Amino acid sequence: MRIIVLRLGHRIQRDQRITTHVALTARALGAEGMLLDSDDRGIAKSIEEASVRWGGSFYVKNITGWKSEIKKWKEAGGKVLHLTMYGINLPDAMHEIVTDKLMIVVGAEKVPPELYELADWNVAVGNQPHSEVGALAIALDRLQKARGKDALRTQFTGGELEIIPKRRGKEVKDR
Amino acid sequence: MRIIVLRLGHRIQRDQRITTHVALTARALGAEGMLLDSDDRGIAKSIEEASVRWGGSFYVKNITGWKSEIKKWKEAGGKVLHLTMYGINLPDAMHEIVTDKLMIVVGAEKVPPELYELADWNVAVGNQPHSEVGALAIALDRLQKARGKDALRTQFTGGELEIIPKRRGKEVKDR
Repeated sequence: MRIIVLRLGHRIQRDQRITTHVALTARALGAEGMLLDSDDRGIAKSIEEASVRWGGSFYVKNITGWKSEIKKWKEAGGKVLHLTMYGINLPDAMHEIVTDKLMIVVGAEKVPPELYELADWNVAVGNQPHSEVGALAIALDRLQKARGKDALRTQFTGGELEIIPKRRGKEVKDR
Repeated sequence: MRIIVLRLGHRIQRDQRITTHVALTARALGAEGMLLDSDDRGIAKSIEEASVRWGGSFYVKNITGWKSEIKKWKEAGGKVLHLTMYGINLPDAMHEIVTDKLMIVVGAEKVPPELYELADWNVAVGNQPHSEVGALAIALDRLQKARGKDALRTQFTGGELEIIPKRRGKEVKDR
């Protein structure tokens, strides 16, 4: 399944770290890239550095006009899942989410009301206030699980470094 | 299973939002509270506000001396799981993590090397750079799943407000 993340409502100073965490989570769990509705170039830069070191081809693309991105995606046969605490709880929605081309929309504090209409699914990761980073992580994990894939075993080709998993301490080897 | 989170390495200005996301994630996914190794009182305050509105009894407790907290926990029969990208990948460690009283340690950028020794398990949520918020979310979700509990169906008693899950838009009712 192809998955991309669309990040809305990013405010340059305030959201830099949270949006970086959104991107790192998306990358680590097998999304192919993130569209960022902002002209903040710093996120793309720091994520590119992660990919140079740790491999893979995850990208961050700055966009203007999130609505046209959603429309383009849908016209090309993609589906759109919006994460919101007000939506249908993920365990109750899993069986409906059938697609092999998914855009997951992750807002900051408030999102434009139109988004609820444009999305194919408005889905909560628990109907409680939450972190969009935590919510995205679980959505990516469970959606891939349902397709027989373990997001924690995503393979990253290339890169300079590789971790050797250890019970204690740290071991990193050059590729 | 009782789960508490221990947050290390919090820097007051820089980490306020990430640590708040750690706490919100812990709360939403059924941990009972978070110990915060910092005298920053702002996190506890904002999380208490969430509990007043949305229910449950999640707490944030400021501590000094994370080592003595870990030792106390272990002396009382608890186990300690440290989340680190250098550890054994979670799917490979799941079968070992047997306890009904778990402390999950979540560091910021760097953690003291002693922690690797004090922890019962050093576990990676994928051996890639990651968000500690995303990593914690998946650990909580999978660990509870393995015990037959869906973290996304955690019940919160009390509170002023309750969400009625909806396909479009928002509906919140008074309790």
